[in-house]
Amino acid sequence: MHTVLSSSTKTLTIGHDLPFCIIGERINPTGRKKFQEQLRAGDLSQIIIDVQQQVDGGADMLDVNMGVPLTDEPVLLSSAIKMIQGITDLPICIDSSIIEALSAGLEAYEGKALVNSVTGEDERMEIILPLIKRHGAAIIALPNDETGIPATAKERLDIVEKIMRSVEKHGIPLSDLVIDPLAMTVGADPEAVKITLDAVYQIRERHGLNMTMGASNVSFGLPNRHALNASFLPMAMVMGLTSAVMDARTPGIVTSVRASDLLLGSDPWGSNWISRFRKEQALAAS
Amino acid sequence: MHTVLSSSTKTLTIGHDLPFCIIGERINPTGRKKFQEQLRAGDLSQIIIDVQQQVDGGADMLDVNMGVPLTDEPVLLSSAIKMIQGITDLPICIDSSIIEALSAGLEAYEGKALVNSVTGEDERMEIILPLIKRHGAAIIALPNDETGIPATAKERLDIVEKIMRSVEKHGIPLSDLVIDPLAMTVGADPEAVKITLDAVYQIRERHGLNMTMGASNVSFGLPNRHALNASFLPMAMVMGLTSAVMDARTPGIVTSVRASDLLLGSDPWGSNWISRFRKEQALAAS
Repeated sequence: MHTVLSSSTKTLTIGHDLPFCIIGERINPTGRKKFQEQLRAGDLSQIIIDVQQQVDGGADMLDVNMGVPLTDEPVLLSSAIKMIQGITDLPICIDSSIIEALSAGLEAYEGKALVNSVTGEDERMEIILPLIKRHGAAIIALPNDETGIPATAKERLDIVEKIMRSVEKHGIPLSDLVIDPLAMTVGADPEAVKITLDAVYQIRERHGLNMTMGASNVSFGLPNRHALNASFLPMAMVMGLTSAVMDARTPGIVTSVRASDLLLGSDPWGSNWISRFRKEQALAAS
Repeated sequence: MHTVLSSSTKTLTIGHDLPFCIIGERINPTGRKKFQEQLRAGDLSQIIIDVQQQVDGGADMLDVNMGVPLTDEPVLLSSAIKMIQGITDLPICIDSSIIEALSAGLEAYEGKALVNSVTGEDERMEIILPLIKRHGAAIIALPNDETGIPATAKERLDIVEKIMRSVEKHGIPLSDLVIDPLAMTVGADPEAVKITLDAVYQIRERHGLNMTMGASNVSFGLPNRHALNASFLPMAMVMGLTSAVMDARTPGIVTSVRASDLLLGSDPWGSNWISRFRKEQALAAS
């Protein structure tokens, strides 16, 4: 299955036979007090720095979240999207929990956006899916519902199937549905990652859907998180994950993704790998 | 399935629910001219250095190969094994293509050794398996036969099943059979790693056998091999690989294996991971 996204000038395709899609996640004020204050004062300059770092790090797409308490998020998000589309041609993943913000973001966006996200709760789907359909966008959906996050892969699969029915009912093609199978923290439950990987495997085997994840969640609370994340992504990729919302500023993790592309046959003969290596060598020599 | 190995004082168990077994591979003169000359002159001192480096790097077991042209390999291998057992309590994987060397190595070894290796060729199995049975050892078997290395996972499975029948016929328990599903080079064939990973998955699913691999083969001829190997091992582990013959001197690759142990639930609550991190911090501070 191919999920095709675009900016006004660039098309990006996500699929199991294609290089992994890195969705750069830094353009987000959560937990960044100074950035929040700047945004509240109408100063968007930090966004330029964050975008450039994600682009330089190798992001294929950008997740943009403007969730700042005590601001008009719809206005802020649409301003940020317009500005970002002026400085990069990477497609954008519009990230908010507020419907009005998603709606304003989709209005402002030029191209076909990915929207992050909807849950499997009926009420949420009935509000968000018509918006997705109207804008011809794609949607990230999480297999949790009114009852919370299911403990087993089987239950997550059941909610995925419910989401698929709802998506189809709203006239949205399944290729525009990207599942987030919920990366849980292994420090809180030794079986958490195995369950997530099992869910990834089954979603791919049964439905062939594209998937994404907030991959760094798995290592929360543990030391040397970068090393854990760099080992998690190859595992998730071989099981069927096709993209991740991740911080492209960490070279080791991006390298691990590009190595996995090569190993899994989506960078045939290593042409991307070798040109990446040459660029790094040139940088190191300069 | 648990494969239990031992030295005279230490027991090591390999299994899908246990931490991955790193078989340190450096104690091998192949491609090392100076080391070969030393061994030919009866000087075993380099072995002490090599053993120490593998132990320091975190090897759980040591592969010992004394294949030097123009030497009496059986004599050399048994001397090396006796010497190594005097300086470390790690179990040994006795590695030779010469039956007389394997036999001498097994005679010299104290404990339960792993033998590397036998192919699925009837003639080889009829010679080596009685030796394994007589010494109560365990054996690494490769799913290639008279016709060469099979191109598909299915054909490798067929040979694995033939090997299983032969092992059982010789009265050796299947828990003492470790399959090497043949890590091929992705630089020579973009599908090579996918085929190997598929074979690993099927061998685990159908037969639950332990597996090992010369993991670094996958990156042969490509730049930044360490990064490729560090991404390959998590993939192979999630598919069912339980050990690898690898050089423990590369910290990034050992870290990737230990991270995968934690992510896959075989280092519950990260106790190994956290103590490893503390040791590294103490080393860095000293």
